[in-house]
Amino acid sequence: MPRIVDHDQRRRSIARSFQDQVAERGFGATTYAVVAAAAGISVGTIQHYFANRDELLRFAFDDLLRAQDERVAAVVAAGEADRQTIREIIRSALRELLPLDEERRRTYVVTQQLRTEAWHDTGLRDLALAADRHVHEAVRTAVVNGTACGEVSPDADPDPAASRILATANGLAHQVAAAHLAGRPLLAPAASDLILDPVLATVFTGRCTRHDPPRP
Amino acid sequence: MPRIVDHDQRRRSIARSFQDQVAERGFGATTYAVVAAAAGISVGTIQHYFANRDELLRFAFDDLLRAQDERVAAVVAAGEADRQTIREIIRSALRELLPLDEERRRTYVVTQQLRTEAWHDTGLRDLALAADRHVHEAVRTAVVNGTACGEVSPDADPDPAASRILATANGLAHQVAAAHLAGRPLLAPAASDLILDPVLATVFTGRCTRHDPPRP
Repeated sequence: MPRIVDHDQRRRSIARSFQDQVAERGFGATTYAVVAAAAGISVGTIQHYFANRDELLRFAFDDLLRAQDERVAAVVAAGEADRQTIREIIRSALRELLPLDEERRRTYVVTQQLRTEAWHDTGLRDLALAADRHVHEAVRTAVVNGTACGEVSPDADPDPAASRILATANGLAHQVAAAHLAGRPLLAPAASDLILDPVLATVFTGRCTRHDPPRP
Repeated sequence: MPRIVDHDQRRRSIARSFQDQVAERGFGATTYAVVAAAAGISVGTIQHYFANRDELLRFAFDDLLRAQDERVAAVVAAGEADRQTIREIIRSALRELLPLDEERRRTYVVTQQLRTEAWHDTGLRDLALAADRHVHEAVRTAVVNGTACGEVSPDADPDPAASRILATANGLAHQVAAAHLAGRPLLAPAASDLILDPVLATVFTGRCTRHDPPRP
């Protein structure tokens, strides 16, 4: 079905142009005319692929969240293949949320703009809240798995633990973005660990016994 | 000088109308006409008090940050009068950053919108960065004072310590706001302590000796 593939590719390509322009000019200045000019297409073509601006916003937001999700999934899979501890894997996964390079900074700036719009747009609001729940559930599951394998105390309550870890990572993402805005060098991964590691240590207090040799 | 007082009051009153409309409708929809109608004045009156939209934005942002600053200063003064530990005072001060009631929620929503604009407006950017630095310096000073009085280990590095505390508080503010958006009940102060307290405990590891009786 080549036409359907082409349709999806065109929608994605328009959404990426939209994201680029929002990252560069801001949400308010990103009109259909601006997106069309940047993509080398006509406004009519955008209107052919998206019923209205809301549909384009939701598609573009969803596309960013999916791409971030795929990067996190790849980091988790690599950590598991490498038999890392849950704490090590979660630390690497959280780095994907930090705007430490151009691709993640673009994702951060555009998602922040769309999240701000979500205060007054119920479609975007549902997407933003679903994305938050999805990430919370992933970290919560890591904490529960940590309890099973010995890295987390059995007394730990996984919901506030996941909230605490994510609050710190999201607040750190803001600081990294602000440093970039201020023209200061981006926070090095090692510096970000000075912020996150002690917070991970409030939850991951034990040692993983998963890879211990079987007792004789 | 009654006319100068009146001038300042009128500017503040217009800025508050602007903030109300941004909180309710979003930044993009808050035109001069909308602000004028809500304030019961003419667009010409706004133009008389503000040279342009940028000046109104900066004044309105600055006004919000000052009001928040005054609330934090009042909390700190009350804690000091009550001879609280630095950790207790900082915990109460950080709660002022959380959108736990209508006034703080309004501040949060409008500041987030203006912070998002700051990505593409150098005047707002400077204000946002100065506000971040100001709060960072205040928390950093609390950590340094904590080192002097025994609440913080002499080995603690005050910059990452302050960054960690503020990252968690800012990320928590986002979660509280998202809970409100989702129509869930606002996080109770006790629940917010489940997030913040263990992070404060990574920095405030000792006991304040300031109020100890002198040794015999």
